[in-house]
Amino acid sequence: MLREAIYHRPKNNFAYAYDKDTLHIVLQTKKDDVESVSLIFGDPYDWKDEMWQTQILEMTKSGTTDLHDYWFSAVKPEFHRMRYGFQCSDKTETIYYTEGGIYSTPPMEIANYFCFPYLNKADVFTPPSWVKDTVWYQIFPERFSNGDRSNDPEGTLAWGSTDPSPTNHFGGDFQGVIDHLDHIVDLGIGGIYFTPIFKAHSNHKYDTIDYMEIDPQFGDKETFRRLVKECHNRGIRVMLDAVFNHSGYYFPAFQDVLENQEKSKYKEWFHLWNFPVKSEPRPNYDTFAFVGSMPKLNTENHEVREYLLNVARYWIEEFDIDGWRLDVANEVDHAFWREFRQVVKEAKPDAYILGEIWHDSMPWLQGDQFDAVMNYPFTNAAIEYFGKNEINAEDFASTITKVLHMYPKHVNEVAFNLLDSHDTPRILTLADNNFDRVKLLYLFQLSFIGTPCIYYGDEIGMAGGQDPGCRACMEWDEQYQDRQLFNFVKSLNKLRKNEPVFGNKADFRIVKADNSKNYVIYEKFNAEKKLIFVLNNSSNTLQVDLQEITDQDLLEWNMEG
Amino acid sequence: MLREAIYHRPKNNFAYAYDKDTLHIVLQTKKDDVESVSLIFGDPYDWKDEMWQTQILEMTKSGTTDLHDYWFSAVKPEFHRMRYGFQCSDKTETIYYTEGGIYSTPPMEIANYFCFPYLNKADVFTPPSWVKDTVWYQIFPERFSNGDRSNDPEGTLAWGSTDPSPTNHFGGDFQGVIDHLDHIVDLGIGGIYFTPIFKAHSNHKYDTIDYMEIDPQFGDKETFRRLVKECHNRGIRVMLDAVFNHSGYYFPAFQDVLENQEKSKYKEWFHLWNFPVKSEPRPNYDTFAFVGSMPKLNTENHEVREYLLNVARYWIEEFDIDGWRLDVANEVDHAFWREFRQVVKEAKPDAYILGEIWHDSMPWLQGDQFDAVMNYPFTNAAIEYFGKNEINAEDFASTITKVLHMYPKHVNEVAFNLLDSHDTPRILTLADNNFDRVKLLYLFQLSFIGTPCIYYGDEIGMAGGQDPGCRACMEWDEQYQDRQLFNFVKSLNKLRKNEPVFGNKADFRIVKADNSKNYVIYEKFNAEKKLIFVLNNSSNTLQVDLQEITDQDLLEWNMEG
Repeated sequence: MLREAIYHRPKNNFAYAYDKDTLHIVLQTKKDDVESVSLIFGDPYDWKDEMWQTQILEMTKSGTTDLHDYWFSAVKPEFHRMRYGFQCSDKTETIYYTEGGIYSTPPMEIANYFCFPYLNKADVFTPPSWVKDTVWYQIFPERFSNGDRSNDPEGTLAWGSTDPSPTNHFGGDFQGVIDHLDHIVDLGIGGIYFTPIFKAHSNHKYDTIDYMEIDPQFGDKETFRRLVKECHNRGIRVMLDAVFNHSGYYFPAFQDVLENQEKSKYKEWFHLWNFPVKSEPRPNYDTFAFVGSMPKLNTENHEVREYLLNVARYWIEEFDIDGWRLDVANEVDHAFWREFRQVVKEAKPDAYILGEIWHDSMPWLQGDQFDAVMNYPFTNAAIEYFGKNEINAEDFASTITKVLHMYPKHVNEVAFNLLDSHDTPRILTLADNNFDRVKLLYLFQLSFIGTPCIYYGDEIGMAGGQDPGCRACMEWDEQYQDRQLFNFVKSLNKLRKNEPVFGNKADFRIVKADNSKNYVIYEKFNAEKKLIFVLNNSSNTLQVDLQEITDQDLLEWNMEG
Repeated sequence: MLREAIYHRPKNNFAYAYDKDTLHIVLQTKKDDVESVSLIFGDPYDWKDEMWQTQILEMTKSGTTDLHDYWFSAVKPEFHRMRYGFQCSDKTETIYYTEGGIYSTPPMEIANYFCFPYLNKADVFTPPSWVKDTVWYQIFPERFSNGDRSNDPEGTLAWGSTDPSPTNHFGGDFQGVIDHLDHIVDLGIGGIYFTPIFKAHSNHKYDTIDYMEIDPQFGDKETFRRLVKECHNRGIRVMLDAVFNHSGYYFPAFQDVLENQEKSKYKEWFHLWNFPVKSEPRPNYDTFAFVGSMPKLNTENHEVREYLLNVARYWIEEFDIDGWRLDVANEVDHAFWREFRQVVKEAKPDAYILGEIWHDSMPWLQGDQFDAVMNYPFTNAAIEYFGKNEINAEDFASTITKVLHMYPKHVNEVAFNLLDSHDTPRILTLADNNFDRVKLLYLFQLSFIGTPCIYYGDEIGMAGGQDPGCRACMEWDEQYQDRQLFNFVKSLNKLRKNEPVFGNKADFRIVKADNSKNYVIYEKFNAEKKLIFVLNNSSNTLQVDLQEITDQDLLEWNMEG
């Protein structure tokens, strides 16, 4: 057995409280190396005749990557405490893996075992329950619909009259969204994620001037209140974008610094290196990336924290929004996000907190900070396989299995699974304008574990490259919309809703990945039912003998869209 | 190269902010498998001609366990942000290990690399600076010295007149400690850790009745205030024991529950399963272990939190104590400890927070909860090797290397390294009354990284088995004290203080572990100086050719004690 590949460590994706009574335990071993794994466990205080009392439970192989197998067990320790170890067997030997190391017989000393000390409810990762059943729709407000010409900024162009540029404006606004809620309802959406709506000069509004004001080009607070109400009336939640890592250049506090320099009462609001503060030729203060017009906010400063936390509270309490998406979330300190969570959950216990993090995000998903992150590792695997055909079926299967084993199960269940966004090319463009590939992407996304997000316009076949290309005006003329694609996505959303095993209430497992014929088979299952998905990623007709996969009777259903 | 054994994940012992400017990066590979490892790193926003700009830095092998090698680098990213990967080479190949997996050429996509998003000062683990130079002394107050007969509880026995039992009393008190501070100063101590001193019936006081009152058998608040002052006058810090996981049976809130049952206003203070609450034959409420007289406190309840946090604040503000040791710390929720840290550090920014955890404790040592834990993995390795000779030299070396790689460097520097305590047999008893073994234990403990603790009486050769045996009355009659041992420990403490490389201001590395002759060689070193320690764990004379170890000129110094 390859001892060097065996890995486990408590209090992350390898061992966590799934709910207040249940622990999930995961073990990593080398791929195809171990034949069976059992969990040895017991209450640390349960002794008889000076012997620690244990039970044993066979673990299930939950997935395989290019290098590793993963083994899973769920346990409900009666007194909420557990010590445990692993018994691993292959054809030639049985070994015992514990915190103390690897042994040939079960160690007698309880101190050697792994420890999950206590299942305290306060520490359980608890996302809002509605998120699991939500399909999101992302709107870039400047480009969704111009419903009110009276609030158009100077120089607004006719809708869709030209390509989007980094600086042009088309007058999209809240009234436009309200006007088109039917489209969103028809598609089967449960939540809208709006990129920033607060006062800012740019068309994307990531350079905030005033976090307490709606940008007038979108409407006013009353329009926004009406928008939220209209959404709620239709069972649609509303999530806003919080750009708290940095402010815009014209944020009054930063302007005050530029004007009053060392005398500014806001000089502690930023990370200034020296005086005089200047943004040219290179900023002498911390910024987002190297963008002088986006000075990084000093969230360690008490006043800044108070200000931003007040913003977080205000839009929930006054406008009843349902979630915050946090821009550049991983560059802000954890301490701030912990306070942020307390404030948000106090204002609305079932608000959703979504961090923009493109990487492995375990440190933010422990229950004390975010409910979810934008799941780009999922995105990348899906795009590279179904979108671009750049990786083979086995690599795709391996990566998706890795993605699912990166986080606890309840973290995966509310992960924000996007295929593209305002920060990437659109899926149709990524897929080289191949609609079949786009359909495979949607089928995979919408049958996967997590909470999927559709980027506005993708559902009717809009194309577009990297920003600004992906931010074009929504196409409302049905004759230019791909209605077949729309209906395909709509029918998937219906399935997701009406068939729990298709949707977010089942387990996922890769069954087969075939490089030569370029297809993958995966299954979604719960105790009662199993759905088998065969996704042909080649342009050839595929014949698969499903009797190889299962000996159960099969009901076949061909997803032709 | 064995790909399956390679492991890294950010934001724990593998990647952490050592200070506000410095990141430490650690990689695990299979033992003796990889010849060299280099860190490839850069600022995520530093691009030129569409190419991400990186640097490369060779990593140092920092240690080897039975299964793995560890590689280390320290980096100061100019803009406090970093993406990075590892280039690993052996004789036949070079591979690139990143978050995305293992590649044969460096991946082009920056999203594939590991991410340390931002070095925010607020998140840096920052223990009090004085702890690094502190040698602790643990006092079990009932058994250290009876300085005031007037506060003796009924039935107090003559000092040392009989063996300690779970229930007898010998009248130890604060005046006794004050009377003997010279002994403690003479030994070279910088801090005293007192087991509980609050009102309780038992001799150990872990069954608190009143967290706001001194147990009268120890003196009153004025005596305690004087004790703290006398300690501070001698440069000695004072740490108290906070038993916040559970109260005692006679804690008024629990008594109120027993009396008023469902009508008790304290019924939310505990985890009651049903009514009527009763402790016999089995408690129907959560307890410490299965001890009905120690009901677990519900630290999720707002009132309980307020009460306990007030206790934490009170003894700092009113009596100027310097630290809290937290009993059964890992069974209390993380959320409570986060609040606790805020309250304690607000009251005294350089107070020390020490958790009682016997296992791997990374989740509590991320900067938001504890400064240290009681380092039992260190204890076990030292006792099993030097104390009992139950493991061989290589196993010892492997375990100690593992212990050092379990946590970040600054966590190790303030780890509470005990050899025994009121919860274990005394070292002399563990070492089968062999004083040479006890000396080896002290030499190792006091030359190691961390903050060592001496259990009262060990330094003068007291013996004693598992509780209650280890809680005997301190021997004050010099003719029964082992003064040679005392002087040995005292001289080690002096070395630790006067020779930074001997003490806590150097790196530690195992140089050699020899099973057949049963010895280990380790070195402590900084940029200027290196000390080589040869510890002969056998009863035979040992000849070692140090020219094998180093080609530098050596100054020899034989530690005969």
